[in-house]
Amino acid sequence: MNDAREVVVLRYGHRPGRDDRMTTHVGLTARALGADRVIFPDNAGQSAETVRDITGRFGGPFAVELRDDQKAIVREFDGVVVHLTMYGERVQDVETAVREAVGLDEPEAPEEASPPRDLLVVVGGEKVPWALYERADFNVGVTNQPHSEVAGLAVFLDRLFDGAELGREWADADRRVVPEATGKTVIDA
Amino acid sequence: MNDAREVVVLRYGHRPGRDDRMTTHVGLTARALGADRVIFPDNAGQSAETVRDITGRFGGPFAVELRDDQKAIVREFDGVVVHLTMYGERVQDVETAVREAVGLDEPEAPEEASPPRDLLVVVGGEKVPWALYERADFNVGVTNQPHSEVAGLAVFLDRLFDGAELGREWADADRRVVPEATGKTVIDA
Repeated sequence: MNDAREVVVLRYGHRPGRDDRMTTHVGLTARALGADRVIFPDNAGQSAETVRDITGRFGGPFAVELRDDQKAIVREFDGVVVHLTMYGERVQDVETAVREAVGLDEPEAPEEASPPRDLLVVVGGEKVPWALYERADFNVGVTNQPHSEVAGLAVFLDRLFDGAELGREWADADRRVVPEATGKTVIDA
Repeated sequence: MNDAREVVVLRYGHRPGRDDRMTTHVGLTARALGADRVIFPDNAGQSAETVRDITGRFGGPFAVELRDDQKAIVREFDGVVVHLTMYGERVQDVETAVREAVGLDEPEAPEEASPPRDLLVVVGGEKVPWALYERADFNVGVTNQPHSEVAGLAVFLDRLFDGAELGREWADADRRVVPEATGKTVIDA
């Protein structure tokens, strides 16, 4: 969503069949709420196809990747790693620090702004390895209650971008929904 | 979450098997992010059981109901009805009006505060009837992009409560997660 910084969502783990819809929703939520790219495990081809199809119809830019080296992606990521987990620090306590770390903060003096850094947001599916907790720059809990990785990702992205993601424009869409008080209007884009 | 006002989430439509996890996640998200009660269609007994089980272990108060009269619930609801749909008005444009309608606004002069009213948040599953669009006081889109009803609900609740839901306390829990920078600590509550 931002030229100088890439926000990537990594879905960690996927059980074909059982997780298909959740993984698809992780990808669609990442796209709709301002991430630039989602990485799925390579056994999540069906979810990747759905997210690419939606991007083709409703616009981008948004990239979908299938990779078999989740551990290496996390280990070698050149930027800030956030791991969303119910065991993490409270999002309301660390969101400012995350924004500062990737240069999304707005300091009082502009010359004190942090440089833009890429951000990897890891969303657990199956059990994630302990190494992920250790590698993450921030383990973040959107509440410390069990709920939904999709809900956690959504609230995290909305707070990361401070709502700016809701106003983004879409390129190369072939259709567009017109927001309405009462209606279901879709027009050619 | 609030003594004077009940926030109820209604999951509209459920296909057993196919929707089980999504419906469960709607319920868990409603609980974690400040709603007081969730209503599932009566064929979603398995999801209801899971949400009740989590409430028993991690605390409440939070109620789970199974009902077979979804249309009547919406039609007869004594309060404000919000329908989350990608065709609706943009959440950033209407969230203040919703907060005012249920008395969650904070006007400059306290005597101008709206009285608390109950709120029904309808989350579509299967195709919802046109009557729902007409009955809703607000059709609200968390983006006008196709993504996830769980993500939409999460962002809507976080904005409705202005983040206050993240600090809520839980009663009658038998366990509690301790937020940590690196760790997975659960203690007896």
